[in-house]
Amino acid sequence: MENNTSEAKELLPSEVFITQDALLDHWQGHRRITRRAIEAFPDDQFYTFSIGGMRTFAELVMEIIVLSGPGIHGILSGDWTYGNPPLNFASQPPATKQEVLTIWDNITAEIDTLWPQIPVSRFHEQEAAFGQYDGTIYSTTLYIIDNEIHHRAQVYVYLRALGIEPPAFWDRS
Amino acid sequence: MENNTSEAKELLPSEVFITQDALLDHWQGHRRITRRAIEAFPDDQFYTFSIGGMRTFAELVMEIIVLSGPGIHGILSGDWTYGNPPLNFASQPPATKQEVLTIWDNITAEIDTLWPQIPVSRFHEQEAAFGQYDGTIYSTTLYIIDNEIHHRAQVYVYLRALGIEPPAFWDRS
Repeated sequence: MENNTSEAKELLPSEVFITQDALLDHWQGHRRITRRAIEAFPDDQFYTFSIGGMRTFAELVMEIIVLSGPGIHGILSGDWTYGNPPLNFASQPPATKQEVLTIWDNITAEIDTLWPQIPVSRFHEQEAAFGQYDGTIYSTTLYIIDNEIHHRAQVYVYLRALGIEPPAFWDRS
Repeated sequence: MENNTSEAKELLPSEVFITQDALLDHWQGHRRITRRAIEAFPDDQFYTFSIGGMRTFAELVMEIIVLSGPGIHGILSGDWTYGNPPLNFASQPPATKQEVLTIWDNITAEIDTLWPQIPVSRFHEQEAAFGQYDGTIYSTTLYIIDNEIHHRAQVYVYLRALGIEPPAFWDRS
């Protein structure tokens, strides 16, 4: 991947709101919290517990997985259908939480590998993410992160309702 | 406010992940959703409804208000105690939802006014936000936004439990 080939230059961190590297840390910090929420959730409630007719954690986590796994490939390449394993919005959750965590960890590694390959100019291209959500790639990237924060926070209510202390929101380690 | 006085230059949007201007839009887009959630919440439940021993929406919204109102002043100036009206983490919610919305709208206007005055290099200064949360100013800024997404999402569960459709998460208009 080439970045600003014609006039390559190094930007100082002080010249931008956030560097591309720091945004990766930001995303992965949130993913670490979500992973802890998956671990904390009782196995026997993962596929069944719900409040107010909302989706179960298993269903919500599949949305996060589809947005982040195929999502990082789309952000890089414009191909929004790739995934290993192949996943789309109709994908059913795997049968166990452990399988969910395995997929989770594979996607975490993929994000770490692919993110540095994204030319910064790519984030300003306009594109229909997943073939349907039109916007700039930076807005799609933030949407993927924000959507994870949003659904994980709902799971925090599930955990509280089940009498379980959720992972600390401020701890990104 | 001077920005890169010694060697001022214009950065192209394509040279950064997200511009400082676009981040303001991003923040205000989330604030518009939260405002709609406040409007949608039943007046008679605003100060009382809770799940799993969690805080009421009135209490959660005060945290968002304290982080964003005094927060935008701290982001700009390093003074984390300013607010009009003065607010801190011990502040009690005002008596009516309408008063909450008035404070909300004042802070929205303040953010619009103060944000463009922040030199981009400020976001990379390390500081104890609110006198206690150490980090770079960009990470504090993202924390303030993420914390709003987080608590608003919990209120979405409250709304669903009350049989009310929450505002669309994707609609930032």
